Amino acid sequence: MKRYLLTPGPTPVPESVLLATAQPVIHHRTPEFGKVLVDVTEGLKYVFQTKNDIFTYVASGTGVMESAIVNLLSPGDRVLVMDTGNFGSRWAKILKAYGIEPEVVKYPWGKAAKVEDLKERLKKASGIKAVFTQSTETSTGVVNDIEGMGRAVKDTEAVLVVDAVSGLAGQDLKTDAWNVDVVVSGSQKGLMLPPGLGFVSISAKAWDLVEKAKLPRFYYDFKTFKKTFVEKKQGPYTPAVNLLLGLREVLRLINEEGLENMFKRFALLACAARAGVAAIGLEMFAEVPCNVVTAVKVPAGIDGKALVKRMRDEYGVGVAGGQGEYEGKIFRIAHMGYIGRFDIIVALASLEMMLNTMGHKVELGRAVSAAEKVFLGN
Amino acid sequence: MKRYLLTPGPTPVPESVLLATAQPVIHHRTPEFGKVLVDVTEGLKYVFQTKNDIFTYVASGTGVMESAIVNLLSPGDRVLVMDTGNFGSRWAKILKAYGIEPEVVKYPWGKAAKVEDLKERLKKASGIKAVFTQSTETSTGVVNDIEGMGRAVKDTEAVLVVDAVSGLAGQDLKTDAWNVDVVVSGSQKGLMLPPGLGFVSISAKAWDLVEKAKLPRFYYDFKTFKKTFVEKKQGPYTPAVNLLLGLREVLRLINEEGLENMFKRFALLACAARAGVAAIGLEMFAEVPCNVVTAVKVPAGIDGKALVKRMRDEYGVGVAGGQGEYEGKIFRIAHMGYIGRFDIIVALASLEMMLNTMGHKVELGRAVSAAEKVFLGN
Repeated sequence: MKRYLLTPGPTPVPESVLLATAQPVIHHRTPEFGKVLVDVTEGLKYVFQTKNDIFTYVASGTGVMESAIVNLLSPGDRVLVMDTGNFGSRWAKILKAYGIEPEVVKYPWGKAAKVEDLKERLKKASGIKAVFTQSTETSTGVVNDIEGMGRAVKDTEAVLVVDAVSGLAGQDLKTDAWNVDVVVSGSQKGLMLPPGLGFVSISAKAWDLVEKAKLPRFYYDFKTFKKTFVEKKQGPYTPAVNLLLGLREVLRLINEEGLENMFKRFALLACAARAGVAAIGLEMFAEVPCNVVTAVKVPAGIDGKALVKRMRDEYGVGVAGGQGEYEGKIFRIAHMGYIGRFDIIVALASLEMMLNTMGHKVELGRAVSAAEKVFLGN
Repeated sequence: MKRYLLTPGPTPVPESVLLATAQPVIHHRTPEFGKVLVDVTEGLKYVFQTKNDIFTYVASGTGVMESAIVNLLSPGDRVLVMDTGNFGSRWAKILKAYGIEPEVVKYPWGKAAKVEDLKERLKKASGIKAVFTQSTETSTGVVNDIEGMGRAVKDTEAVLVVDAVSGLAGQDLKTDAWNVDVVVSGSQKGLMLPPGLGFVSISAKAWDLVEKAKLPRFYYDFKTFKKTFVEKKQGPYTPAVNLLLGLREVLRLINEEGLENMFKRFALLACAARAGVAAIGLEMFAEVPCNVVTAVKVPAGIDGKALVKRMRDEYGVGVAGGQGEYEGKIFRIAHMGYIGRFDIIVALASLEMMLNTMGHKVELGRAVSAAEKVFLGN
């Protein structure tokens, strides 16, 4: 069956990128590979909108989240987590695994973090070392006000650590202009690569913390990466060479389209997806929806898990279900990376058809036509 | 320039494997991917020669070395490292990063670990929790007597943890029959995949330690992996899907050739490589040479770094130099994975030519003919 992937990671990988990853492997301690590493690091700085150091790890997104914690903190440190969903809670879980008891500002799923809450917490409590949050919370489709949080954190001693695993290259995130100290991300979402690479950017303010951080670490140690990278243009351990060859091609594509144009494209796709589901009477889940994934409430009387499963198994159309408590209650359509307008049309068409098949009658073509109107600017 | 890769990782990747990694990405929480994960895990058990649990991580080899340490140990634990080179020392470095002060039995580079030394240490000191060593020590080309070490450790309370990053699928390692509790490995050596995957196998005896281990961990937590794998046939975090598609093809190739036949092939390649360098008067570096990489002393008066660099830049033939103190003093020719007899011929021919070019006169064709004799069984 012909398949369409509209999950919020992994996302579809462009054919030229797949082929780039299938090149003969090159040794990682050669000038040839050193040039690849330097080139992709420069390219990533454009995407991260930063002049900060950026390191590439062989790791899942969770691995680089952990890298930020172990490199920045010491036992007993006070930290805040602005938790807006599954991945917000993951910050807290990793912190606890390392003996750090975070203060968690927890929002109901579907709500965005409030900058006012952050300001209040920072005012009340002195000595907060770090604030952890998400740019886009993949589990709920919410976008947080990172610019506002950056302003709130900037003049305190705390660093702002942002998980942009799903947001990077899809939702605007001006790392330097917005004073974001550490950004972590992965390869398999906005960067439209297969999974396997983790990225982290580190500001000067964050480096000061790294110097003092006492949590144990080896593989993820930022100082080892910095030293090896600066001295030798190499990673300290064997990097995922072929994924980096793919990343070079991804960065070429991003450069060709331009970051601003990409953001506009995803905003348009998001708008079309939202208009489509609204036209058939479905409700958005996110209070402040992001541009990389649209989370939609499953209509009453419909089994959301079956909806997602049947779209995948009967039509070949992969959207994501809900996570945690929202399993079966929401579904999520991604619009980032190599997803274009006709992928949104496919998702909406398959949704219309499957809802009818499952007994929830909607007018066929209505969601699709609403999306088309958005694309035509009507 | 046409290139030949004979480094001890990354090693050349078969074309069918490269193409398998370039398939469209599939979502990691689908039955389709679950089947891939179950299949490759079963296939890995054949290669590891074990019935133990095997988990696949997105990590470099160093990452899975760290995973063994943080999952097995608690602060204050007594451990032994049988250190025969660069990667032996890495065990000690990671342990120290986690506050564990290991007792290190250090051998001069080029020597193998002695089982007698291990027995003596275990007899003297009670309460040793784990013994760390290498199957093949990539930096020196030595193979350690893992069978003997397994016998020594078996009836003590200690677990035996073996780094087989370069050894797996190249040098015989009977995980179960030899009582090896934890084996760590990577994708880019004997498994002839691009770098990016780390593997770990865990015996029942090791699981007992995992239950008590107090070192902090999250991403590498064995219990999380076990739970997710058993309950859902999934990894807890996004796995490197496309490398796993490649691994499925690798395991098909290994199954087709048969593990025993592969071991014989590498033993023959090793024999040919050794005969070749000996025929032109060069000396082996390893006291007990392994079958996956041959380490050779650079002849007096020759700059070993230049030798490796010029073979790569002028002939396109990639062999590895020495590491640490032995940089420039030895070079290393790999014979594992997708390396065959004519790759060894290429390495020896380029060596003969370059030695002459650099002023160290050897008879042209002499190393090659010695290798051919080995291949013909003469």
